[in-house]
Amino acid sequence: MRTIDFQDDTVRLIDQTRLPHELELVECRTSTDLARAIRAMQVRGAMAIGVAAAFGMALGAREYHGNDPRELLVHLEQVAATLRATRPTAVNLAWGIERAMEVARLALVGSAEVDADAVDRARTAILARARQMADEDVAVNRRMGRWGAELVPPSARILTHCNAGALAAVDYGSALGVIRAAVESGKQVHVLVDETRPFLQGARLTAWELQQAGIPLTLIADSMAGHFIARGEVDLVVVGADRVAANGDVANKIGTYTLAVLCKENGIPFYVAAPTSTIDLSVATGADIPIEERSSDEVTHLAGQAIAPKGIAAAHPAFDVTPARYVTAIITEQGILTAPFGAALRSAVDAVSKERGQQAARCRASSPAVRAHC
Amino acid sequence: MRTIDFQDDTVRLIDQTRLPHELELVECRTSTDLARAIRAMQVRGAMAIGVAAAFGMALGAREYHGNDPRELLVHLEQVAATLRATRPTAVNLAWGIERAMEVARLALVGSAEVDADAVDRARTAILARARQMADEDVAVNRRMGRWGAELVPPSARILTHCNAGALAAVDYGSALGVIRAAVESGKQVHVLVDETRPFLQGARLTAWELQQAGIPLTLIADSMAGHFIARGEVDLVVVGADRVAANGDVANKIGTYTLAVLCKENGIPFYVAAPTSTIDLSVATGADIPIEERSSDEVTHLAGQAIAPKGIAAAHPAFDVTPARYVTAIITEQGILTAPFGAALRSAVDAVSKERGQQAARCRASSPAVRAHC
Repeated sequence: MRTIDFQDDTVRLIDQTRLPHELELVECRTSTDLARAIRAMQVRGAMAIGVAAAFGMALGAREYHGNDPRELLVHLEQVAATLRATRPTAVNLAWGIERAMEVARLALVGSAEVDADAVDRARTAILARARQMADEDVAVNRRMGRWGAELVPPSARILTHCNAGALAAVDYGSALGVIRAAVESGKQVHVLVDETRPFLQGARLTAWELQQAGIPLTLIADSMAGHFIARGEVDLVVVGADRVAANGDVANKIGTYTLAVLCKENGIPFYVAAPTSTIDLSVATGADIPIEERSSDEVTHLAGQAIAPKGIAAAHPAFDVTPARYVTAIITEQGILTAPFGAALRSAVDAVSKERGQQAARCRASSPAVRAHC
Repeated sequence: MRTIDFQDDTVRLIDQTRLPHELELVECRTSTDLARAIRAMQVRGAMAIGVAAAFGMALGAREYHGNDPRELLVHLEQVAATLRATRPTAVNLAWGIERAMEVARLALVGSAEVDADAVDRARTAILARARQMADEDVAVNRRMGRWGAELVPPSARILTHCNAGALAAVDYGSALGVIRAAVESGKQVHVLVDETRPFLQGARLTAWELQQAGIPLTLIADSMAGHFIARGEVDLVVVGADRVAANGDVANKIGTYTLAVLCKENGIPFYVAAPTSTIDLSVATGADIPIEERSSDEVTHLAGQAIAPKGIAAAHPAFDVTPARYVTAIITEQGILTAPFGAALRSAVDAVSKERGQQAARCRASSPAVRAHC
């Protein structure tokens, strides 16, 4: 089951705020619905929101009923701005939007001032791109998983934070993809799952995914990770990423930095599973990554219930930055990258661009029927 | 307002499970009631449960209606065993029980086989001792506070974990005592309060105490501490302790070790405020301190509500051990101790024993009326 699906002009998402108690779908009929779903974290996770945003662009294209390619572009830029503003930290969001805009612009090249066909072509191209990205995402996750599984010992106690699973992607997952692949290759794995306050992605989502997959797990409060690491009960930590800077600094769910420090202090590896879509070469270091500050109500309340005195202040940085020096390796679909990360990240991104360029060339050379879905 | 009070054969405790929403009292009429209150964490905090246990012994003495001093002792040993078994980590519990037993044994020295007066003397002596311990606790907290305040810069951002406040003692608090004393001496203080999952002592109790005292605070999830420390937004961390081993290793609320590692990594001081009653010279290192494992329901549920899928496993170590090498200083009522902690801890404990010996000698030399309340 995929976390994101498009049918009958509607994007359907697994509502991640209702799990683990209810498996329900959110239906987004407009790009505004979709932006709302991202902001409310009904869909979350760097890869998932990247693909969701591309589908949001497809919805946006459907909201334009005219025949003027330029008007369509202006409209799409507005939709893009709305989607982009939902969550600032994960670079995949902007990346998903840009990949959708790219095919829209291409489809409109050389169009007339009034050109219903061109507008239609652009609409089709955006949806095809979003679908392609969803398929790619699954393939990328599986490739990351295979690479990452090589880093897992035959019998491993793995700690993970937040949810970098199937739910954070279209399927399979990044950090959980590594764990799934390790299990699929016959390794014995036990997972310690950080509950991940305040949003409880670990307790609600990761625990649920692992339970569904039949992978043994133990849920712990975030503050317990250090205890188990110090007692030698964790062999490695693997997490996902929301953005990787050009130097290898990693922005990920709040609490990740602390785990990395604990790993260093106790001499165990700290791995980041991040597809190349998460790498942002335009930011030099983690200091340049915007950290989303969410509502303090999410800290002072839990499931609508106040857990703190009325009227107190609370902070809610949703992410933190782990400096590259704490990262043992970054697992990408292009392979396992180690320090110095600068060169390794650049060449992984270059390799993907090259692949995509070749794909595009093959596509341009193919028949018009095939080309419409490139 | 004291957290523990004894009147009309009843121990009244502030019910810490109801805060911050309701300020209610638990009434314990029997030692069994009191043991239940400690186990359910209606009263919690090393110092508070030490004093509460002494009052529990006073209740226990009242449950014996015979005239046989030996029977009374046997009964008191049973009460002591029940109280001791409630929570294993904080040494103050055993210490509070032992200090009560001490005066009971003394009061029964030289008694006849049937001796109503001796039984009555023992009853009175235990209650007097419990009351004395409650008074001492407040005095000790204020002394610790004054010492600790010297370590606080004129303008300080202080992070604390769990609740080592008035509620964890009879009044004033250990770590919060340091913060209160710093504020009372005119320092500008802002406190970052870890919420302290799973029991939320930070969000529920520390936030409430600081709010009541008018000391500015910001509540954070435990996983956010590293983020703020790494960004240079914390000047020092101060926590309480449940037991300090002879070498300076500190058992305290789960999550403490992680904070100590973060402090070391970022070059900021990590202080432990611990009265000498928390020092246990009989355990060589932290490895010998028993760590209480509480119900996993406290991790999988919050305020009665499930936050994780049904049927998953969860771990709940309630404490962790911070090795002495991470501790910048231990603040006691005898002064500020620094490494090497072994000698410093021993001499602080010796100083208190000497004080108490002198007190006892003065008491023995005083009139019988005064002596009954020594």
